[in-house]
Amino acid sequence: MGTSTATKANYQPALEKLLTRFGDQASTAESVRDHHGHGEGWFPTNPPDLVVFAKSTEDVADAVRICAEHKVPVIPYGTGTSLEGHLNALEGGVSIDLSQMDEVLSVNAEDLDCRVQAGVTREQLNEHLRATGLFFPIDPGANASLGGMTATRASGTNAVRYGTMRENVLGLTVVTADGRIVKTGGRARKSAAGYDLTRIFVGSEGTLGIITEVQLRLYGIPEAISSAVCQYPDLESAVNTVILTIQSGIPIARIELLDDIQMGACITYSELEGYEAKPTLFCEFHGTEASVQEQAEQVKAISDEFGGSAFAWTSKTEDRNKLWKARHDAYFAAKTLAPTKKGMATDACVPISNLAECILETQKDVQESGLIAPIVGHVGDGNFHLVLLFDPDDAEEMKRAKGLVERLNHRAIAYGGTCTGEHGIGIGKMPYLTAEHGEAISLMRALKKAFDPDNIMNPGKMISV
Amino acid sequence: MGTSTATKANYQPALEKLLTRFGDQASTAESVRDHHGHGEGWFPTNPPDLVVFAKSTEDVADAVRICAEHKVPVIPYGTGTSLEGHLNALEGGVSIDLSQMDEVLSVNAEDLDCRVQAGVTREQLNEHLRATGLFFPIDPGANASLGGMTATRASGTNAVRYGTMRENVLGLTVVTADGRIVKTGGRARKSAAGYDLTRIFVGSEGTLGIITEVQLRLYGIPEAISSAVCQYPDLESAVNTVILTIQSGIPIARIELLDDIQMGACITYSELEGYEAKPTLFCEFHGTEASVQEQAEQVKAISDEFGGSAFAWTSKTEDRNKLWKARHDAYFAAKTLAPTKKGMATDACVPISNLAECILETQKDVQESGLIAPIVGHVGDGNFHLVLLFDPDDAEEMKRAKGLVERLNHRAIAYGGTCTGEHGIGIGKMPYLTAEHGEAISLMRALKKAFDPDNIMNPGKMISV
Repeated sequence: MGTSTATKANYQPALEKLLTRFGDQASTAESVRDHHGHGEGWFPTNPPDLVVFAKSTEDVADAVRICAEHKVPVIPYGTGTSLEGHLNALEGGVSIDLSQMDEVLSVNAEDLDCRVQAGVTREQLNEHLRATGLFFPIDPGANASLGGMTATRASGTNAVRYGTMRENVLGLTVVTADGRIVKTGGRARKSAAGYDLTRIFVGSEGTLGIITEVQLRLYGIPEAISSAVCQYPDLESAVNTVILTIQSGIPIARIELLDDIQMGACITYSELEGYEAKPTLFCEFHGTEASVQEQAEQVKAISDEFGGSAFAWTSKTEDRNKLWKARHDAYFAAKTLAPTKKGMATDACVPISNLAECILETQKDVQESGLIAPIVGHVGDGNFHLVLLFDPDDAEEMKRAKGLVERLNHRAIAYGGTCTGEHGIGIGKMPYLTAEHGEAISLMRALKKAFDPDNIMNPGKMISV
Repeated sequence: MGTSTATKANYQPALEKLLTRFGDQASTAESVRDHHGHGEGWFPTNPPDLVVFAKSTEDVADAVRICAEHKVPVIPYGTGTSLEGHLNALEGGVSIDLSQMDEVLSVNAEDLDCRVQAGVTREQLNEHLRATGLFFPIDPGANASLGGMTATRASGTNAVRYGTMRENVLGLTVVTADGRIVKTGGRARKSAAGYDLTRIFVGSEGTLGIITEVQLRLYGIPEAISSAVCQYPDLESAVNTVILTIQSGIPIARIELLDDIQMGACITYSELEGYEAKPTLFCEFHGTEASVQEQAEQVKAISDEFGGSAFAWTSKTEDRNKLWKARHDAYFAAKTLAPTKKGMATDACVPISNLAECILETQKDVQESGLIAPIVGHVGDGNFHLVLLFDPDDAEEMKRAKGLVERLNHRAIAYGGTCTGEHGIGIGKMPYLTAEHGEAISLMRALKKAFDPDNIMNPGKMISV
């Protein structure tokens, strides 16, 4: 992973040009570089040589053009919340921080769409939309930037109903690897006009170009929203409730699983009252008053079949917010189970019919590993997470944690699933990408080479070239 | 468009190898070649030199490998229903007919998905699914093959609720331009694992590879389905009903517009009773009994505001089928307005807020052109069609028809829309692709070159290389 001093010396002319072009919008300060050399994952920091704080698409294009001229690596940076090492500057180079590109450019309430600069966060967008009666549903937990969410094909708790970034990005502005500014997609709801460039960049993790603007679908805030919590005697019953709910076609907006360990941690961390440390589902229903009622009754009937506790209901905004804040804080709650350790958050996703087997085998594997690793997930999509707690200075424990992650990924793939439902490949999942996609990797490599022939865009991530 | 005799002579070794390899699965008969040299559009026939009837992915791979070796053009063929000249063998070469690859490979009712060979048609799939309580909603009117529908990113009447092929294809088997067999995507509902190769091939019109298998999302047949017909004093009122329905977030399953001329033609052609030749909406609602009722009442209230006639209701399957058959036969009905002429079917799609302006300006343009060209469309998506009737032997009339199409496309693009919502680019829309996408065309060209360096896959279509 190290970069030779000789290579780094080659970067010098580019760094000087960037400092001249960007002045106090560029920094080589160690603290700034360190901050930009990692995400929220467990990977050790690899700082870039320089950070550029872009304020416009033209800034990004200028920075990339200078880097391209000197073949210097470029790593786009949003809010730093990625989990699989996407932000690490493995070969040094330049981090382009887009967080100051935080303008909502337009909201077309009539067309249920908007255009934002890449640094706008999802919470900022929803705050901006407050008066319009619209919202943007994709919610990966972290208050990530919409550019970063696009680049990692993010999803989260609402995806079971509203889809992921794949379904909700209508178009993009992208700076290509040679520093050109390109617009993809458009504002029409559908189009059969040419290759789907938008979807090529959604999930490309900064390896094909830098996303600077995003056109997004919006939705009307539902007339009625209602949440429910239900607890189960065992994990299998909770998962089976989810499977039957999805198979019945109930348009549930959120259905989240927490295993007993995770629920115990959340009760303490988020001061949830009236619950036990048991396998638990957090549900949410969106619709008209009548349809929310209907959906909730349908799910309750299924839940009863599997021995679920009485639904703890709420349609009060305050209570709902507390519940979902607790869900979003699950990672931090999990970490309190072993405060001196680090958390390794990993995710996998399988077809819903294999979800019970995959989760139960994973739970058994966790128990046999002797590690603390609660299970939590967006189970309506077949997507779930492990948060493995490990001591980075304990090589044996780290090896056990990595082994558990490795087995989880191969298990998900064997069950017809994917090694990542939403976190992306980064550096953490590279070994599993080939296992999952086989020969198709050659096409991914051809695409990478076509769009980034000098391999300067976030090099060393996703696929090796 | 002509191919020199010298080039054609170079094809000979490949054609001989193909005849040896495929025996009576290959044909050079003139009638067979002519049949494979056009779709349902108005473009004159360009026959291929040979047609291969593939029975397996391996057949396709073998045929492509032989063609690749000798740089002979390859054109995939499904049911021949494409409208923009996708199937014309502009430079001769080999048409690979996939219609005999018509096996439904698996249905996973529990996961709401299935896998089909590319030659399975949408009606065949729905017939196959009949006993399962599931259906595949994408319905472009023609009984097209699912491979062809994937390749053109088809949509149709149900797309307003269920999305297009873009949203409903989970994965593919593809034969690459060098004859390798590659699987893309998977069965998980979502994945953040690598570039979205599936969506690269959806809508690629045979120019990047040949789709031989498709993994599709399925849906439960709704508990209740109800259709309604409503007629309006003018086109604007009909379109405004659509706009407000969509903007209100009503999850309508189908909402189709027919202008007065089209409705008049359909009344005669399909023997519809009790209607007038006025601007008309055909609507369909899917859901539980309660939600269908609720949706219909909401739309009726909007329709009343715009002077719509009393809803003509039906939830009888037989009546509904008659209605939708009439809608699907709109093209044939339109052609009866001038039986000696040819039909030029074109489509465009705009953001819903611009739909009224775009349709009304188009109607005015049609009136001023002196042509017969009814308007019909999947207006819930902002997508509509013109069927222009013209005499191919009347150069002046043909020029007027082409002028109308050209202005429609530029108008749609100027309104923030696309030159094709669902028919694809083929050869008919190539001039507008650049107008719509600008600099992004360079990325499309880079992709084409990366996946098909010798330009043998459906050459001369979509983008010029």
